[in-house]
Amino acid sequence: MNIRFILVGKAKEKYYKLAYDEYQKRLSKYANVSVEFVNEAFLPTAASDMQILRALDEEADKILKNVKKGEYVVLLDLHGKIIKSEDLAKLIDENCTVGYSTFTFIIGSSNGVSDKLRQASNFKLSLSKMTFTHPMTLEITMEQVYRAFKINNNERYHK
Amino acid sequence: MNIRFILVGKAKEKYYKLAYDEYQKRLSKYANVSVEFVNEAFLPTAASDMQILRALDEEADKILKNVKKGEYVVLLDLHGKIIKSEDLAKLIDENCTVGYSTFTFIIGSSNGVSDKLRQASNFKLSLSKMTFTHPMTLEITMEQVYRAFKINNNERYHK
Repeated sequence: MNIRFILVGKAKEKYYKLAYDEYQKRLSKYANVSVEFVNEAFLPTAASDMQILRALDEEADKILKNVKKGEYVVLLDLHGKIIKSEDLAKLIDENCTVGYSTFTFIIGSSNGVSDKLRQASNFKLSLSKMTFTHPMTLEITMEQVYRAFKINNNERYHK
Repeated sequence: MNIRFILVGKAKEKYYKLAYDEYQKRLSKYANVSVEFVNEAFLPTAASDMQILRALDEEADKILKNVKKGEYVVLLDLHGKIIKSEDLAKLIDENCTVGYSTFTFIIGSSNGVSDKLRQASNFKLSLSKMTFTHPMTLEITMEQVYRAFKINNNERYHK
């Protein structure tokens, strides 16, 4: 199995990098894991709505050209579905059973996500009613995917 | 204003410590901030429900003996209320207005929280329907409190 995490933008703080490395290491017990960063499209300081939409489309294109047809795409989206950790575990398990071998988790830029990405996604997931930073959203998502594998393998979660 | 974060247990990973330090630094612009750790009560491996309840009470006692009457206590609780970041900002702002000068955020141990703590709390907050690790819950809570101050001060949040 393959798991891809894609973040639009950067995680400047060292603690995010350390956390990503740690979860990538932990998850590598269950799958091939990659953490990929896509550059945010350039936006002037006082961008118009149209400029923002274009930037989001540009970011979506950059992501989608590297997403193959058979991948199961989960988009992290404020307007997505709020589910329990156990339900995420079930989602991965069930889609694995029907033949998906690559799960791709996409975290958009701080400007939001384009409808292109929404349409290309199999599932739109919201972690909370609260707004989290994007690098933190990646950290939490990685932890939840790790937790999902622990649940699906009936392993105790010590953390 | 004073803000206290209390975590029962330890955060072993370095990236948590770095994240706590960062948010403590950022929040110190708005308040005196402390991050306090309380030891988990000892539990044998196959603890009975009664032993767990006693351990939780013991942890609650350790916390509550250092909580003064005038503190506004927010307990992080899976069964608490799920609210938006803007509502947390409002909660802090409104309670500040009515005279609270210390806000205390408590994150229980991995065994849960005692009813003693629930009763002693002014607000029970749930970050998500998902289950997060306890050190991660502290990181997210600190970020949300920082975000609350940014919102209440009408400051742009660059992260």
